[in-house]
Amino acid sequence: MATNYDRYVERMRKIADIGHSIAVLSWDKETYLPKKSAPIRSQQIATLSGIAHEEFTDPAFGDLLARLNKQRNLDDDKKKNVSVTLSDYEKATKFTKRFVMQKSMAVSNCFHAWLQAREANDFGLYQDSLEALVKIKRIEAKKLGNAEHLYDNLLDQYEPGLTVETCDKVFNGMKKPLKKLIKKINKKTAPKKDFLYKKYDKDVQWNLGIYMLSEIGYDFDRGRQDLSTHPFTTSFSADDVRVTTRIDEKDLSNMLWSCIHEGGHALYEQGLPIENYGLPTGSAISLGIHESQSRLWENNVARGKAFWSKYFKTVQKMFPKQLKKQTADSFYKAINVIEPNLIRTEADELHYHYHVLIRYEIEKALIEGTIEVADLRDVWNAKYKEYLNIDVTDDVNGILQDIHWSHGSFGYFPTYSLGSFYAAQLYAQAEKEIPELEKQIAAGNSKVLLDWLREKVHRHGRRYEAEELCEMITGEPLNVKYFMNYAKKKYKEVYS
Amino acid sequence: MATNYDRYVERMRKIADIGHSIAVLSWDKETYLPKKSAPIRSQQIATLSGIAHEEFTDPAFGDLLARLNKQRNLDDDKKKNVSVTLSDYEKATKFTKRFVMQKSMAVSNCFHAWLQAREANDFGLYQDSLEALVKIKRIEAKKLGNAEHLYDNLLDQYEPGLTVETCDKVFNGMKKPLKKLIKKINKKTAPKKDFLYKKYDKDVQWNLGIYMLSEIGYDFDRGRQDLSTHPFTTSFSADDVRVTTRIDEKDLSNMLWSCIHEGGHALYEQGLPIENYGLPTGSAISLGIHESQSRLWENNVARGKAFWSKYFKTVQKMFPKQLKKQTADSFYKAINVIEPNLIRTEADELHYHYHVLIRYEIEKALIEGTIEVADLRDVWNAKYKEYLNIDVTDDVNGILQDIHWSHGSFGYFPTYSLGSFYAAQLYAQAEKEIPELEKQIAAGNSKVLLDWLREKVHRHGRRYEAEELCEMITGEPLNVKYFMNYAKKKYKEVYS
Repeated sequence: MATNYDRYVERMRKIADIGHSIAVLSWDKETYLPKKSAPIRSQQIATLSGIAHEEFTDPAFGDLLARLNKQRNLDDDKKKNVSVTLSDYEKATKFTKRFVMQKSMAVSNCFHAWLQAREANDFGLYQDSLEALVKIKRIEAKKLGNAEHLYDNLLDQYEPGLTVETCDKVFNGMKKPLKKLIKKINKKTAPKKDFLYKKYDKDVQWNLGIYMLSEIGYDFDRGRQDLSTHPFTTSFSADDVRVTTRIDEKDLSNMLWSCIHEGGHALYEQGLPIENYGLPTGSAISLGIHESQSRLWENNVARGKAFWSKYFKTVQKMFPKQLKKQTADSFYKAINVIEPNLIRTEADELHYHYHVLIRYEIEKALIEGTIEVADLRDVWNAKYKEYLNIDVTDDVNGILQDIHWSHGSFGYFPTYSLGSFYAAQLYAQAEKEIPELEKQIAAGNSKVLLDWLREKVHRHGRRYEAEELCEMITGEPLNVKYFMNYAKKKYKEVYS
Repeated sequence: MATNYDRYVERMRKIADIGHSIAVLSWDKETYLPKKSAPIRSQQIATLSGIAHEEFTDPAFGDLLARLNKQRNLDDDKKKNVSVTLSDYEKATKFTKRFVMQKSMAVSNCFHAWLQAREANDFGLYQDSLEALVKIKRIEAKKLGNAEHLYDNLLDQYEPGLTVETCDKVFNGMKKPLKKLIKKINKKTAPKKDFLYKKYDKDVQWNLGIYMLSEIGYDFDRGRQDLSTHPFTTSFSADDVRVTTRIDEKDLSNMLWSCIHEGGHALYEQGLPIENYGLPTGSAISLGIHESQSRLWENNVARGKAFWSKYFKTVQKMFPKQLKKQTADSFYKAINVIEPNLIRTEADELHYHYHVLIRYEIEKALIEGTIEVADLRDVWNAKYKEYLNIDVTDDVNGILQDIHWSHGSFGYFPTYSLGSFYAAQLYAQAEKEIPELEKQIAAGNSKVLLDWLREKVHRHGRRYEAEELCEMITGEPLNVKYFMNYAKKKYKEVYS
């Protein structure tokens, strides 16, 4: 006979099936959707979102969760599943189905307005739908609770427990040493990197991306890569985790980091225990931890010297003309040159955090109501002048570059910096625990690192919270010093 | 305030959204699904199928339909929507959600077993899951009613009102004149067609297919083409109608007819009134009428002399080496040579109906229980010997060639022949009504024909039943003589 816990699992799997169906429809929307098919697709996604919400917030399910939460004879994993779900349930029940569907439609409208605005290179075309969405997000934040900052409620959706207070502490702790390091680096002569901007054929780049993904351990039997405007990773189950990329013929880096970054996200999702499909113990912890996986592969591994001592020759063979005069060392140095720039996803590892900081400050103010959507472009451009000392040339290279706000993702950006810092801390620990890690990477055996991450991070799902997991693995809470140490060591080498 | 009819429309659109989401998941399954992702995808589709069934068979919705069906102040279209939905509702309520989900899982299993069996060229690998599915289809047929033949209940799902009695009449009426015509043709010397089997580059074929689809009026802003094992058309709304094709480098015909055939289906779906999304008046009538649209474009138009007098030069330019010595006339004749063959989708227009007849006889017997799945291969091979006088070489070229049974589609095949016959009758009428139709096609203006079909067939959705529509347009019920007349005229010309 089915137990209460069985009934709970059955309901969770049903909700996961609906959620993943929404993910399939959204993936298709961003990769293959015909030009005029957007409105009905948005409606279809909204309908499924409404159904998923109804299934999850069903009071009978709430009762079941409450009963299970008091049940003593469940093992720890089951208890964890129930308590995490109950907490999710309590948040979800603050919203009506109507609100969820309205938000879904507003997101779809906003995404398509964003695409159109990008095409026209005009923020003005996007402003109205973004305003409508920000309004909804403000309501959402208010309904979620009485945190000190309204914006805290949104941060919590991506990184449970994260607050403005913590964010300010992290960013303030980072600003000064980062500025100092950049200043120090800039006194030296930068290595040459112009060869990265020769013409690199699209198809060959595509093949290189596929090859790189395979090399870091991405399983193409349980995933695939496609093209999209903004690269992303999406999961329809641990057995179907897809990545997208974009290719710029004038910039080899663009594809490389996007492939490996999304590959890192995908390795996490493919490493979640499929037998816990639909349950917290089968799901990712937080965006900070998610980003730690993508950053770790992108930066700590694939922007590393060991990695290119292994792979440079392969890339050189694929682009013999473009890379004729280069060596593993000159390539490694070129990809690590730092320079303030306009596009976050193309930023170097140091200036990157200013890009995040700018977004953090803007979206916090937007949600708190201290700036308006109408002023976004001006605020954006002013902050790029202030923090990076560059002039924003146009909207596509400025305020229109990121997809996130058009998805209603406010509170997401800070997790990008957290992710880098977690990545550095985890990587430092991996170096302690895996004998000769860098040598293994240089030998093409990055699998030892993947196995370590599978064991330490992936297999747990949401069994632990981000901070808890970080302490368990590294013996201390998140500490920016690991990132700073990593950066100092690296740039000393690059700018030698 | 929302009326009962508004509430009905809202529910229908919700169900359509779920149904079309299932279609997106299924489309992805057959085009882009990673190798190991099938089991969970099957479960996701089953979950959505269960939800759609629950939404549709909700007793409260049944009450609403019953009330609306008695309401006198609705206009004719609204009345039609309600009465058709009520009849669909009465059929759907014969099944539990559990049964619907079980069937969905059995279909998915069977489809993947079919793929694997094809890869191994071994029917044995497919037998068990097909047996399970046939068992379910027999139960389904029994639950649907007490028709004279159990199989009638399944025919009715694809072609409302179609029975074994009618099928037998149609096939018996066709057998003799068809045999006589084939005999007569075979006395003459066949035109050469060997050049169709030279090497035709895949990418160029792909481009040709896209071009042909555009030429017949397929709207790529509201659809797209992809590759799949078995070509199909699927609709996520009239604004997102997708086709798939397959390409054989050794056979130009294969791609050509598959593209234009699916294109014909897609023109019908793109022509349905989008404002009636989710309602009977926004949906296709029957598979017979659907197939009339694909066959009309494939055979009556694109295997016609007029069509190639326009397009041969284009194709010749794309394949200059392969078609150097050919003319529009020799090409037209080559693509119309008749010859018994093993694969239905590659059959000529005459032998085609024997392929259908074989499947009709087999599936009828399967459902009625007079043959067993274990005997399918033998029965199949024997019938190919009997009707087409050829020996089946292996399973992929025999019993494993069609996807239909693996989808649980029993009762579908006969609509293929009906479709050809409807197509001939409709085309004959179009020739009467459209001034100089063939000349217009020869001038690349097949749009006159599409406009005529949009007006006569597409825009009505399910406003009329198949036979009713046929009479309305042509002045008489389905009559095989139109097909025979068309065939006699054509082959006299081809074999001159």
